[in-house]
Amino acid sequence: MHPLSASRLANIEPFHVMELLTHAKALEAAGRDIIHMEIGEPDFPTPAPIIAAAQTRLARGDIFYTPALGLPELREAIAEHYRTRYGVSIAPSRIAVTAGASGALLLALACMVSPGSEWLLTDPGYPCNANFVRAFEGLPVGIQVRPEDRFQPTPEDIERHWNERTGGALFASPANPTGTLIDETVLGDIARCVAKKGGTLIVDEIYQGLTYEQDARSALSISDDIFIVQSFSKYFNMTGWRLGWLVVPERYTRDIEKLAQNLFIAASTIAQYGALAAFLPETIDILEQRRAEFKRRRDYLVPALESLGFHLPAKPEGAFYAYTDCSTLTPDSHQFALSLLERAGVAVTPGLDFGVAAPRSHIRFAYTTGIERLEEAIDRIRTFLAK
Amino acid sequence: MHPLSASRLANIEPFHVMELLTHAKALEAAGRDIIHMEIGEPDFPTPAPIIAAAQTRLARGDIFYTPALGLPELREAIAEHYRTRYGVSIAPSRIAVTAGASGALLLALACMVSPGSEWLLTDPGYPCNANFVRAFEGLPVGIQVRPEDRFQPTPEDIERHWNERTGGALFASPANPTGTLIDETVLGDIARCVAKKGGTLIVDEIYQGLTYEQDARSALSISDDIFIVQSFSKYFNMTGWRLGWLVVPERYTRDIEKLAQNLFIAASTIAQYGALAAFLPETIDILEQRRAEFKRRRDYLVPALESLGFHLPAKPEGAFYAYTDCSTLTPDSHQFALSLLERAGVAVTPGLDFGVAAPRSHIRFAYTTGIERLEEAIDRIRTFLAK
Repeated sequence: MHPLSASRLANIEPFHVMELLTHAKALEAAGRDIIHMEIGEPDFPTPAPIIAAAQTRLARGDIFYTPALGLPELREAIAEHYRTRYGVSIAPSRIAVTAGASGALLLALACMVSPGSEWLLTDPGYPCNANFVRAFEGLPVGIQVRPEDRFQPTPEDIERHWNERTGGALFASPANPTGTLIDETVLGDIARCVAKKGGTLIVDEIYQGLTYEQDARSALSISDDIFIVQSFSKYFNMTGWRLGWLVVPERYTRDIEKLAQNLFIAASTIAQYGALAAFLPETIDILEQRRAEFKRRRDYLVPALESLGFHLPAKPEGAFYAYTDCSTLTPDSHQFALSLLERAGVAVTPGLDFGVAAPRSHIRFAYTTGIERLEEAIDRIRTFLAK
Repeated sequence: MHPLSASRLANIEPFHVMELLTHAKALEAAGRDIIHMEIGEPDFPTPAPIIAAAQTRLARGDIFYTPALGLPELREAIAEHYRTRYGVSIAPSRIAVTAGASGALLLALACMVSPGSEWLLTDPGYPCNANFVRAFEGLPVGIQVRPEDRFQPTPEDIERHWNERTGGALFASPANPTGTLIDETVLGDIARCVAKKGGTLIVDEIYQGLTYEQDARSALSISDDIFIVQSFSKYFNMTGWRLGWLVVPERYTRDIEKLAQNLFIAASTIAQYGALAAFLPETIDILEQRRAEFKRRRDYLVPALESLGFHLPAKPEGAFYAYTDCSTLTPDSHQFALSLLERAGVAVTPGLDFGVAAPRSHIRFAYTTGIERLEEAIDRIRTFLAK
């Protein structure tokens, strides 16, 4: 007589791309050359000043716990970053340093999701968000965002989906998988709408800094009453360090601290000391060069994909993804992705991972590999499609 | 109109010792010398071979995500550690590497706690356990464990507290705050009892390796059907690295992997490469010397505390805590701890952090500082009590 796992598990999906990645690695182990465009991870190593700061700290040997909400000097450095780069003033006491953006999402949702409450998310969107809501017994509600709105929600979407059980909304800018931004005026209207209804707004800004037309502002410019989820993984190239942060509306800081003490104890000490070097001018110089490189890749990849028949309903302005409609090329993007991997050695992410609205007609390409490899991928896809 | 945080927050307590620690740091900043016996953290730096392994990996710069359940070679090294040191054979596929034991507890409870289910814990016990249960909408039920049972539960306790809503039980050996072990025969009876009732048994072994009479066996010797929560923090002196692991009964490995992918992505890459050196003979040599030092401290501290009037109902056999009954010295251990800090400069943890059964009559002393400091603390407490 064995207990069943909790019912929430039945509704939590694995990442489909992981199976594809396993398959890709098996092919590589058998000697095949695979071009990886499936992974949401920058291909650049962590900038040298961050490595050096971590090495210095490691050499001391006493790698003890930090306070639950993070090193005071790192919380101050993050606040200073908001002030100088984004022109917003945030008290360091509102910043909780976490184990990746995952830790920040977990704290925010553990704090705000009541059992049975509904949470508005976008479809397509980052697949884990719905599962975080489910973990705390909330109900994710997908807003089918439209290409004509650049796959971002509108205040009308909020009005249409809101009911007496709705607890709040979680949106991303730049977004995964689409790479689009929420217009600041629209987000302002959304924030007012959510506030009027007595709900909670969470904005995922983990791709902030990786925008290619403009240095996008933070939602903190609009209101102090928004939870902001952030990460050192993407712009700062620190994925494997597992460090991020949450900006917390003032009145929830005590609740978030209690949760952090209990659920995490603290984030990685080594990562926090490394991150102290993330805002140095020499680090930012490196990161801005890489941002320019991501822009070059996007500017190459998007028209190249279009020339092959992939349709981009909304040009990506940030992150490192091209979210394409492939419905004129295949009726089933999942099967297409498998064939593309096996026959052309190009790994991409099928739409299945990003929602239920139109998963079979979309594919996400990540430009997290160099331009020469992107060119090789385009050649391979062209040959694949011609067969 | 502001939303309230989720109702679970009202039942989650902050650590009381944190307020005391803040107070202690303020006193230190004002020039006072404080002896820290309140912190559950080894005072030893991370062993040099672990530091060196992390430094070598950091120098490469490419600190990318690992698989969600951890580096395959680390999962194998952990399995090998169980085989050679504890004589149990565990498939590496059953090991999930996590961000500290906190991450392991979170995965196990997210997987097994259904809303409204009751979970049996010990009182006194590690305070976060009840809050993890609450985070997933379960109801923690404290078993008042007795000094005559060495503060560990019995099969009769399970029978007495089990009802149709009970989902499982979570116990620790060695335990915090008492430092006592569960007798292996008793644990076997408990495991059979829980299995017969169709419940889940989770055993916290984060202090494994830190035992002073014997090299305690793992609960895995009893059954493959127990979740084991483990940590690199305590025996391996890696607190600030935030690394631990969960041993998962075979049939839940897929659920745990889904949860890890969604809630964490992965544990720290640097910490995992460091931990590969944790099982090297030269590291174990260092750790065994430190274990001997902890034993010397315990053997000094326990009789010294008893000579001052602190009563130890059960001699600690492991971890680095002495859990004392101070009811002949004070009616209120919380107030006593505050006075002891302010007037004698000795920081300890009041019983309030470990349960509701007898919090005002107990104090936990951590022997996470050197013998000379422990002697100084005993002198100060003696003077304090004489006033």
